[in-house]
Amino acid sequence: MTTPQGEAHAGAQSSAQRPALQLPHGLGVADLDFAKQGGLLPVVVQHHRTGHVLMLGYQDAEALTTTLRTGLGTFFSRSRQRQWVKGATSGNYLRVVSVEVDCDRDTVLLVCYPDGPTCHTGEETCFTGGAGSFLAELEEIVLARDQERPEGSYTSSLLEGGVRRIAQKVGEEGVETALAAVAQDDPDLIGESADLIYHLLVLLRSRGLALADVEVELRRRHG
Amino acid sequence: MTTPQGEAHAGAQSSAQRPALQLPHGLGVADLDFAKQGGLLPVVVQHHRTGHVLMLGYQDAEALTTTLRTGLGTFFSRSRQRQWVKGATSGNYLRVVSVEVDCDRDTVLLVCYPDGPTCHTGEETCFTGGAGSFLAELEEIVLARDQERPEGSYTSSLLEGGVRRIAQKVGEEGVETALAAVAQDDPDLIGESADLIYHLLVLLRSRGLALADVEVELRRRHG
Repeated sequence: MTTPQGEAHAGAQSSAQRPALQLPHGLGVADLDFAKQGGLLPVVVQHHRTGHVLMLGYQDAEALTTTLRTGLGTFFSRSRQRQWVKGATSGNYLRVVSVEVDCDRDTVLLVCYPDGPTCHTGEETCFTGGAGSFLAELEEIVLARDQERPEGSYTSSLLEGGVRRIAQKVGEEGVETALAAVAQDDPDLIGESADLIYHLLVLLRSRGLALADVEVELRRRHG
Repeated sequence: MTTPQGEAHAGAQSSAQRPALQLPHGLGVADLDFAKQGGLLPVVVQHHRTGHVLMLGYQDAEALTTTLRTGLGTFFSRSRQRQWVKGATSGNYLRVVSVEVDCDRDTVLLVCYPDGPTCHTGEETCFTGGAGSFLAELEEIVLARDQERPEGSYTSSLLEGGVRRIAQKVGEEGVETALAAVAQDDPDLIGESADLIYHLLVLLRSRGLALADVEVELRRRHG
């Protein structure tokens, strides 16, 4: 975990952009058990889309209060004995989506959207590995292709072609997946399923929708 | 986080079931920075399929060594000042899939498959919320339906019907998704996409495959 120098610059995020964050269940900062570890709580930082664990930091009551107020992941550096805003030096701020606590109220989970790589090594996460959804990563790639439209990218050309063409591909890939399931071996079925999911992600993107919208519906039906 | 009493029983897992775990990059337990926090490292526990953060515990060198040897999440209780095996009392062991470390070598990430709820409250996780993939959760539901085949369950009846019938549904849902994309509004497209993904998960299951197999292929192509 890196500890950039300096404090957050005031313009990083205007208060008009998002409502102030709150702890769950009506808890206040003073309700958390800071005493167990000399005034500090361990803070797990998780990517809100991929689920990857990005880093572990520490917060005192002031850093947590600052995080809730600004919406930017803010920690207490044990080595420097002072507050630091992740991204103040690198620009890779952690936009906090929600602040969760554990059943003992002695650990914080910050669910964030990172502006860039979280680790000071330039890697996405400070950890050597971990679990998470590649579909969410793939969707980020599709989103970037949509925004940048690089030449020679198949995703770009699909998006240029418009909804009708992408929809046709989803229909075709659905049928190809069905045929592979009844008449082909595992690698073929896996390959066709990958084609189907990829084109579905591009189709959703072309309509301004996201896999998260579909996951909400699936959770409503099956969760 | 709960701290069950007692130690792991020897029969929980035979050594023949899995190879011994190792730290990444050829690191040994002694290479980790236990000094920073009085001989203990914070340990983030993550579900290897859903990516959910399940709990935060602490390990001394002995608990980490035991975890690597047994493959069961083992921690050091700060309140009891002794080692404990998660699940020794409840039966809800954490089957460790991989042990990761962070860039400062002062935090551990245990990627696990939990035998049951991780929190002592009976909840899946000790945290009030967090990020992760609902598709992985849905796949666990489909797997349970396949194993238990409860009467009246639509998933059970699909699986009873066999691969050909489920494949047909995937083809149909692919076409319905395509039609919704070109001629219907967002809730319709979201609903058809949800149908398509659900039936694809059941189809993969009916062939003994998993979404993870498809994610590996997608990562190979796009990662």
